[in-house]
Formats: sequence, C-alpha cells, structure tokens
Amino acid sequence: MINQDYKAMLGAKNIIRNLSEYATARGKEIGYENVFDFSLGNPSVPAPEIFTDTMIKMLRDENPMKLHGYSPTLGDPSYKEAIAASLNRRFGMDYTAEHIFPTTGAAGAISHAVRAVTKPGDTVLTIAPFFPEYKPYVEGAGCKLKIVPANTDTFQINIEEFERMLTQDVMAVLINTPNNPSGIAYSTSTLRYLADTMTRKAEEFGHPIYLISDEPYREIVFKDADAPYVSAFYKNTLSCYSFSKALSLPGERIGYVAVNPKADDAEFIVPMCGQISRGTGHNCPPSIIQQAVGKVCDITSDLSVYETNMNIIYDTLVDIGFSVVKPGGTFYILPKALEEDSVAFCNKAKEYDLILVPADNFGAPGFFRMAYCIDTEKVERAMPRLRQFAKEVYGLG
Amino acid sequence: MINQDYKAMLGAKNIIRNLSEYATARGKEIGYENVFDFSLGNPSVPAPEIFTDTMIKMLRDENPMKLHGYSPTLGDPSYKEAIAASLNRRFGMDYTAEHIFPTTGAAGAISHAVRAVTKPGDTVLTIAPFFPEYKPYVEGAGCKLKIVPANTDTFQINIEEFERMLTQDVMAVLINTPNNPSGIAYSTSTLRYLADTMTRKAEEFGHPIYLISDEPYREIVFKDADAPYVSAFYKNTLSCYSFSKALSLPGERIGYVAVNPKADDAEFIVPMCGQISRGTGHNCPPSIIQQAVGKVCDITSDLSVYETNMNIIYDTLVDIGFSVVKPGGTFYILPKALEEDSVAFCNKAKEYDLILVPADNFGAPGFFRMAYCIDTEKVERAMPRLRQFAKEVYGLG
Repeated sequence: MINQDYKAMLGAKNIIRNLSEYATARGKEIGYENVFDFSLGNPSVPAPEIFTDTMIKMLRDENPMKLHGYSPTLGDPSYKEAIAASLNRRFGMDYTAEHIFPTTGAAGAISHAVRAVTKPGDTVLTIAPFFPEYKPYVEGAGCKLKIVPANTDTFQINIEEFERMLTQDVMAVLINTPNNPSGIAYSTSTLRYLADTMTRKAEEFGHPIYLISDEPYREIVFKDADAPYVSAFYKNTLSCYSFSKALSLPGERIGYVAVNPKADDAEFIVPMCGQISRGTGHNCPPSIIQQAVGKVCDITSDLSVYETNMNIIYDTLVDIGFSVVKPGGTFYILPKALEEDSVAFCNKAKEYDLILVPADNFGAPGFFRMAYCIDTEKVERAMPRLRQFAKEVYGLG
Repeated sequence: MINQDYKAMLGAKNIIRNLSEYATARGKEIGYENVFDFSLGNPSVPAPEIFTDTMIKMLRDENPMKLHGYSPTLGDPSYKEAIAASLNRRFGMDYTAEHIFPTTGAAGAISHAVRAVTKPGDTVLTIAPFFPEYKPYVEGAGCKLKIVPANTDTFQINIEEFERMLTQDVMAVLINTPNNPSGIAYSTSTLRYLADTMTRKAEEFGHPIYLISDEPYREIVFKDADAPYVSAFYKNTLSCYSFSKALSLPGERIGYVAVNPKADDAEFIVPMCGQISRGTGHNCPPSIIQQAVGKVCDITSDLSVYETNMNIIYDTLVDIGFSVVKPGGTFYILPKALEEDSVAFCNKAKEYDLILVPADNFGAPGFFRMAYCIDTEKVERAMPRLRQFAKEVYGLG
C-alpha cells in the first residue's frame, strides 16, 4: 500500500510555489516584465565563466572513465582537499580532507549532519526566522524540530527564549547565517553568546550539543556587515555549505559538511556520513561537478547585484515608512507588513502585480519576504509600484 | 552525541572493498597488469562520445542559468519526457513524463520506491542472490529485508521458498534482473510466475504488493538471452534504473523510478517521491546531467566487451570443470567454489593473484563472483592462471 504519510503531505500548499506559479501565469497575461516577482530565491547571475571553461576542458581532455567514474564513498579527494585548504586559508581553520564530506547541496549536508549527531526521538532546536525545509530535514531523521521565536527587533537571537528552550533533550542547534528569510548575519557577539551558552548547557547536561550551521549564503555578505565564520566560535560545529548561490549552480547539487577538527568524535563523523548515505540512497554528488568545483572553489559569480538591489529596496522601504532591519547579506529582506495579517497584505500586493511572500511559514508572522535575486532594472521599476501600493491601500508615503 | 548505530556500522568489513584494496596494494608490488582483479563492478568502457559532445555543446551554447538552475521538484521535463518516450517505444509501455521520477542512480531510485510503497515496520522480500546494499536501502526506510534463498540450479526464483515467505506483512518484492551477482536474467516464464503469484497473494491478503524492479544492467543483455521488460508483466511495478552501466556514468548519479501507469495509486507515487526527497536531503540529480542524458538516453556505450569476456570465462570455467550457470547479461558470473567454504577458496586464489569475491554476502554461500568489466586482453591472460590454480590446489582440469 502506498505510504499514507507521504500521500498526506501532497495536500499541503506550498505558498511560495503557488505565488511563483501565479506570477508565471500572470506574466502570460500582461508580460512577465510587468510582474514584480519577489517570490523565488534563485540566483539571478550566471555561473562564472571559469566554471564553464573548466568543465569543457575536463570533458575534452580527461579520461571519461576517471571523470565519470564512481567517486570514493567519502568523496573525491581533490574536492575535499581543495575545500579544506580554502576554508583554512580564509577562516584560519585547520581542516584536512578527512573533515569534509561532499553532499548534494546544503539539503544533503543538513540531512547527514542531523542524522550523525542525533538519534530518532531527539530534539533539534532552530531559531526563527528559519528556512521551512528544516522541518522535513529534521523529521526525516526521526527528530523533533523546536523553534525559538524570533527576535523581531534585530533578527539576531531571542536570548530569553533560546535559554528557556535549550533543554536536556536538545542534541543539536540548527542555525542559518546569513539568514533566509531575514538577510541578517549573526554578529560576533551573537556567536560568542551562542557558543558560551551551548558550552555551559552541554556541561550541565553531560552531553555535547552540536551546532549545525547552514551557510549557503556565506559568500553573499554586504559592505560593513559583521558576518564571521561560525565554526571558529564553537568546536562542536558541523558547517553545511552549498555552492548553489556563490557559484550559481543550484541545480548541480554540490555542497559539503565540514566537521570542526576539534569537535567531539570528529574523526567518526565523516565516515558515519558515508554510512548514512547508504540508508538514504543519496550517495555522492556528481563526480564531474565535484572535480570541477574543487578547481574553482575560491571563485564566485559576480554577486554585487544583490547588494545593489538590497540598497534600492531598503532605502525605498524606509522612505515609505516600513519597519525593516537592514540585511547584512543573502538576497532576502524581511520587512514588517503594513497590517497584522501578512497573508492578507501579500494578497493585496498581488493586485499591484507585486509578488511578496508572507513569512508565517518562516516563523515570522506579520512579516513578508522579498527575494531580490532579479535584475536591478526590474527592482528599480518595482519601487514606484511599491510606493503606490503602500499609499493607496495603507495611506503611507 | 554522535549516533551510535551509524558509528557501529563503521566496524563492519566490506569484503569487496578490502579485496579491491588488496589488489591495488599487490599491484604496486608486482605491477597491476599482473593482478587479475575480478573484484569491482565498475564499467570498463568509456561513456559514448556523443554524451561528451552533448555536454560540451550545452556548456558552450546554453544559458548557464537554465543549464545549472534548480530543476523542478519532480525533475527536468525534457529528461522525463525522453525517458517515457524511450521506454514506450522499446517496451510497448504507455508512460508519460508524470510517471518518471529522476533519482541519483538506482540507489536513489530504490530508496524512494521502498519508502513510497511501505511504512516503517513492513517487510520487503528480495530473492537471493541479491545485491547486499539492499539491506541498508530497505532498513533506511525502517523496513525489514527478508531474503528468499537462491535457486542455485538456475538462479531463477526458488519457487517453494518464495511462496512460503510471501506472507501478509510483505508490502514489496525487490528483484534485480539481469542480476548482480549471478548475471542471470529472469525469463519470461519466471516473470509470468512472479506476476501470477503476487497477483494471487495480493488478492488473498487484501492489499497490493508492489514489485520494485532494480534494472541497472537492463542494456547489458547477451545474445539469445530471454530478458523481457519486467513492468510489462505486472502492473504494480516500480522500475528502478541507473545510467551508470549503459552510459558508463556511475559517478554522475543519474537514474529514475518509472511507475507503471496502471499501478494502484500510480498518480500519487511520483509526487510522493518528491516529498520523500525532502526528508532525505537527496533532492534532484544534477540538472546538467539530467538534460544531457535526456538527449542521449537511447544510446549506450559499446557494451560488447562484456559478452566477449563472459564467453571466454564461461568456456574456461566449464572446461576446467567448474559448476556454473551461463549469464544472460551484466558483467558478472557466479560459479560454485571448489570447496564448501568460498572464503577459503578465494583466499587460496589470492595466492595466484586471482582476486575473486566470495558470494556469501550476496546470499550465495559456496559461490564466488567474478566481475569481468576489465580489458579482454587481461581476461585472456587470467585464464591460464585460473587453470593453474584449479589444477594445483584442487586437482582439476
């Protein structure tokens, strides 16, 4: 009999997907250039040319048996070595290839990391606002996801609630910085606080509490933002990375788990990830992509457009009178809606062909997310529309 | 705390990997050309040139945003359409793109298929000899794997044991044809018997019993072999495929689940696979590989070497006096060892630099597997050594 739990999941509406489909349909009516679609977090800049050149050169020159052969269970050595060297150089860490486990993007990384440091029934704590896919990732490992309510003043951590919820049954804390949907990067003082609190509680509870740090936006950090490398603050950190955003390769499913060499049981975690893969059928990310990304892992696409877009949107929002925290990175911003019900707010915005996403699912009810990974020209054209909407519906500006 | 179950798995010896590592080490001593390594099932022919050309052309000409962008949750439409059309044309089926779910190889396919048609605690039945990774795939879904003992006369199905073990708690039967490790393809009469029995038992039990058909060797079928398309015999079939062998792309992790359009609840299964992926972090196979393989899915590498090798080995084995069933496909053969303890047998063969794999883990104790995906020249050079070994140690030939 088909599995009734998975069948039941089919009924759930995916609000972002629905909005995106609406935007596409509306685009067919009035021209997609006239729909101001801020729904989807897809990179809007191409992969760097050097990635394309590297791929073509490998395909042309290398032995296809090696290029397309099985990579070892724990990943392609050249990829693992390149990642370790890059992280060490940039963040003063001391990874070796043995601390790096290649995964199918950050989704694969988080799924492995959670399974490695929990057992079914354990609790994983995350901090709002948070990426809604954390729920299936954590529940897929048989764990419970509990959510620390947001600090809506800064989108750093709600300290009071975090300490209250960091109880004996919590085996891992899952964070995302720079953050989807807020665009905020956790500051040095936030990470110090987090590390101190987790260290203290772990001692009190008599078991390690691992920090699973989801970092696909790590390379999209804006001028003057304080966005330090998480693992440098807390030894029991598993860093989960994806090249989806930095190299604009979201479809190629390439990322990794990097285990802090000083973590408790660090030497077991990568080999355990290999065992975890056997049970999920995931196995390795594609061989040719591992080899190519290993060669270009210090390069990024031209990511400057995201900061340009952010500044245009942020300044306009402030000028109109929105309450909004300025992002330190990513391609998201999370302003407060102009009425309590952000779903109603976003529905009204649709009438102006502004596609905005209510952030209730992200643990930020009353806020809405704008993904500004779109052409700057379109962002500029959207601003008068945003003003018009705020003025006509809410009397602002 | 790190997960103790996964940690415990690290202790287990992988006999094939150990043998393969031994062969590599021995090769460093005496030259790898002098080690007759029949341990590993890696394709020994390159990917077809048209695949390489297609990849280069796509990289050169296509928009990188489209090429490397997220593929839709349920897979790239061009890939799904190409697979459906190919299967329909070749096997008289009536798939549409909606029945095809792209996966990271057959491992990903089986992991999804098992989760889709079972719930944790259910039983999945497989038939020896079988691929040992079925155990983690099935147990990863929370199910029990039960193994029907082999019919060692033919390596078709042990009918008596199959009927005894096909009990009320069995929700899926997992088969592999052409088979790793026996090389045997299930015949028309075997598949008719299987379909009739499963249909009858499903009616008796009042629930569907799905057939999960693992078919990575489907295109490696030898002259005169009777190796029909499984799903044509039984409507509740989920065909699990990988292009690893046919296109020599094992590292690129590209395959699919094809749901028989007439299966019970067929319309739900592919969308459910999308939900299953959310919980395992697997998501889609790489975007560029989906698009490229979609364009060449009717092509294969030059697979003729495997039949050439099989004939040389089979004829030699028979001539020496081994008991062996002639393979109908794959690049494996499964002769009976010359003593009851096949581990001891394979250890003695190692002294002759013949690397053979005891098949105990494959559910065929007393047999050994030879993977003949190696150069024909080397196969030819290995035969005198095999004769010498059988003669000196066992007085045969």
